[in-house]
Amino acid sequence: MAQHGEELAMASEAAIEQHQVAGLSLLLQIVMLGFAFVLGHVLRRHKFYYLHEASASLLIGIIVGGIANVSNKEMSFKRWFNFNEEFFFLFLLPPIIFQSGFNLYAKPFFSNFGAICVFAIVGTFVASMVTGILVFLGGLFFLMYKLSFLESLLFGSLISATDPVTVLAIFQELGTDMNLYALVFGESVLNDAMAIALYKTLMKFWHDPSANYSFTVAVSSFLQTFVGSMGTGVVVALCCALLFKYAGLSVNSLHNLECCLFVLFPYFSFMLAEGLGLSGIIAILFCGILMKHYAFQNLSEPAQAFTRGFFQLISSLAETFLFIYMGLDIATESHTWSHVGFIFFSIVFILAARAANVFPCAYLINLIRPVARKIPLKHQKALWFSGLRGAMAFGLALQSKRDLPTKSNGETIFTTTTAIVVVTVLFIGGSTSTMLEKLEVVGDDYAALNVEVSCLSLFRLEERASFMRRLETTIIWSFIARQARDI
Amino acid sequence: MAQHGEELAMASEAAIEQHQVAGLSLLLQIVMLGFAFVLGHVLRRHKFYYLHEASASLLIGIIVGGIANVSNKEMSFKRWFNFNEEFFFLFLLPPIIFQSGFNLYAKPFFSNFGAICVFAIVGTFVASMVTGILVFLGGLFFLMYKLSFLESLLFGSLISATDPVTVLAIFQELGTDMNLYALVFGESVLNDAMAIALYKTLMKFWHDPSANYSFTVAVSSFLQTFVGSMGTGVVVALCCALLFKYAGLSVNSLHNLECCLFVLFPYFSFMLAEGLGLSGIIAILFCGILMKHYAFQNLSEPAQAFTRGFFQLISSLAETFLFIYMGLDIATESHTWSHVGFIFFSIVFILAARAANVFPCAYLINLIRPVARKIPLKHQKALWFSGLRGAMAFGLALQSKRDLPTKSNGETIFTTTTAIVVVTVLFIGGSTSTMLEKLEVVGDDYAALNVEVSCLSLFRLEERASFMRRLETTIIWSFIARQARDI
Repeated sequence: MAQHGEELAMASEAAIEQHQVAGLSLLLQIVMLGFAFVLGHVLRRHKFYYLHEASASLLIGIIVGGIANVSNKEMSFKRWFNFNEEFFFLFLLPPIIFQSGFNLYAKPFFSNFGAICVFAIVGTFVASMVTGILVFLGGLFFLMYKLSFLESLLFGSLISATDPVTVLAIFQELGTDMNLYALVFGESVLNDAMAIALYKTLMKFWHDPSANYSFTVAVSSFLQTFVGSMGTGVVVALCCALLFKYAGLSVNSLHNLECCLFVLFPYFSFMLAEGLGLSGIIAILFCGILMKHYAFQNLSEPAQAFTRGFFQLISSLAETFLFIYMGLDIATESHTWSHVGFIFFSIVFILAARAANVFPCAYLINLIRPVARKIPLKHQKALWFSGLRGAMAFGLALQSKRDLPTKSNGETIFTTTTAIVVVTVLFIGGSTSTMLEKLEVVGDDYAALNVEVSCLSLFRLEERASFMRRLETTIIWSFIARQARDI
Repeated sequence: MAQHGEELAMASEAAIEQHQVAGLSLLLQIVMLGFAFVLGHVLRRHKFYYLHEASASLLIGIIVGGIANVSNKEMSFKRWFNFNEEFFFLFLLPPIIFQSGFNLYAKPFFSNFGAICVFAIVGTFVASMVTGILVFLGGLFFLMYKLSFLESLLFGSLISATDPVTVLAIFQELGTDMNLYALVFGESVLNDAMAIALYKTLMKFWHDPSANYSFTVAVSSFLQTFVGSMGTGVVVALCCALLFKYAGLSVNSLHNLECCLFVLFPYFSFMLAEGLGLSGIIAILFCGILMKHYAFQNLSEPAQAFTRGFFQLISSLAETFLFIYMGLDIATESHTWSHVGFIFFSIVFILAARAANVFPCAYLINLIRPVARKIPLKHQKALWFSGLRGAMAFGLALQSKRDLPTKSNGETIFTTTTAIVVVTVLFIGGSTSTMLEKLEVVGDDYAALNVEVSCLSLFRLEERASFMRRLETTIIWSFIARQARDI
């Protein structure tokens, strides 16, 4: 009995200690999150463009991971930082992708829609094929770690998903040509969808090696994923728009209900697509684009302000957390020299592949466009330069680590992708302002944009003030009436 | 090779199917969540007080669980609804508890502070001891399933945590005496903290049976948990208040940073307390009370509006989800007749225990209070009646299921608690409006409260309008100046 009691006490002590370690590590993560926000703000305030918020988060992660590496507790720390994939795919990635769709500027995006589609669809396909083939050839000639042909193509497709965050933040702060801004933003948003669809199509071949590798099968499978997921997102967004137009929820007393329902819709589209066996990420992306344009206008004004802030808050929390995590991961992962070679050559290859995407596509587009609207060479160079890799590439690499049966190959792909994300965010992100100034694309439309914004806010203020004046009158009258009745 | 391919295909198909089932079940949960919100709104709009939002969520859960029970897929459904505890303790419970502290009305709460403390601390202690001893005696005399003495006390302490949601929502809509409102709200908020501290103290005895059961050890252990956790929450909230007072974050351009940091603080207090081996829930509760009174005023006005909405949105999502889950659980759990007996007698015992809490404590308070401020008998009856059980009792029962080594005893406690939550929410929640009318405590201060609120909003509006007028002038001038410079 006494022995049983002792055993029990020991087991429960271990459980309590484990619980405490979990609490401490989550505490550390929150502190890092808060610190990253403050640091990012300080850097922005002092106009220090060489280290952006994302880069700062990455560095914080790397430093804390390095300290954890040196200390003895590394194992227990690492176990808790190694967060589970479900959390990443269900709670971190969807808000980030939704927000990128929700934030799209409507007018310049749609006036460059053709060009963006060429870059995002044809260009991304070309880039991922070029990367895949180069990586395969590199492995064949003993230049780097050898992957099979299908694995190389998988890697090529997942590494072709670019991330807009850092470059666009600097674009916004320095001011740049609206068309260039729309091209970079639109391309990096849509090519995520393309990369996922390519990845899923290749994965199907992997899982079903008995199928014949015919071109038509691949195309139909690709279209099924892409169009199906896009359709899901579009349908959900339109339902949302109809609901908020006709349900009369924009009354003041229903503010809470309105916000709750609006916030649930994107997640609904994500889950619906996943439940149908399609890509939830593509669905939530298009849902975001359409909800902004059709449903958002039907909300009441306080609900608009609230939901805009809500989506931004959630996505920036998720994104900062993600960059911190990537930093931690790169610092605590065990690395071998074969990885270093693979990483080096991969970076060279993706730079070449991005060139093979941007310049030929721009040439094609310029053939069709009138002289006044041709894409100038400096914009093409800026577009080539802004190919950072971020959350999406990381997410797909995480998935490939789970999907691929050969463990070491999956790990090589994952480690390489993480390293590429870190390198591109730190170096490309850090040199963007220099690059923009070198290419002389800074400040073109800055003054115009600025005036436009202040006009807009002026209009909003006037509208709001008049609304409040009316409200005020109503309330004063009802107040006086009640007082009079009471007397 | 072909066989290997087939195996691979089968395994991956199973994985894909599992993934799809997970997606579908999450989809179903989102649909239920949205449906519960809409149903709750419709019920409130038609002033149907017999079925509140919480009850509606419970019923939706029970119905869907019942359908899943009948259909063949029950097993796979059940597996996915059986959500993990980490999710509950880390993401569902903290926002609910924080919001209950954050929402406390300051003035009536502090003017009744003494009475609330007597009910919450002395009263809850008495109630949990009475329940525990009655349950133990019931088991001893073969009236119900037999629990050990310590288990009975554990059950008594966890079932003493009452939930304010439903009753208070109806109080708010019908209008009632402010003092009664403050008593019910304050008591149900603070007794959560008391129940947790009692539970943790008893758990320590359980884990360390070699310790001698001296009274002083118990008291010091209890004080350690209670005061330590409270102190953590208070210190974090005061740090937050100081930061927002002196960091100058209430500038317009820092809106996002301000909100992000403010939202992280409650969670920080929760994690800090957990990391220190204390109770995160008690910490986040007091953090909420103090953040509302000291830190909230230091935010800029748009940030105030946003964070208020944010906390409300998150907590109502968590709460609705929780009630749906409890409904699902009660419908899909396997029940035996021994449970039914235990549930029936437990309900009788907790009613008796609550009477042993409310009436003697009120007698003591009335001995001290002046004649004008004595608690009238009808308020005592209303207080006795409002003892619903909710999220906190459910959470502690979930934890006891994990903590107790005898599996069947833990399951009995868990099932009984879930059933008590369902019964009290459905029946007490449904009959609250009738009860309030019978006791003639409806509408006392309603008119006064109403006028006060409109005065308040009038003041706010005037203030806001004048601020906007000033802003307007500034913007117009800077606009004109820029135009002039451009010309």
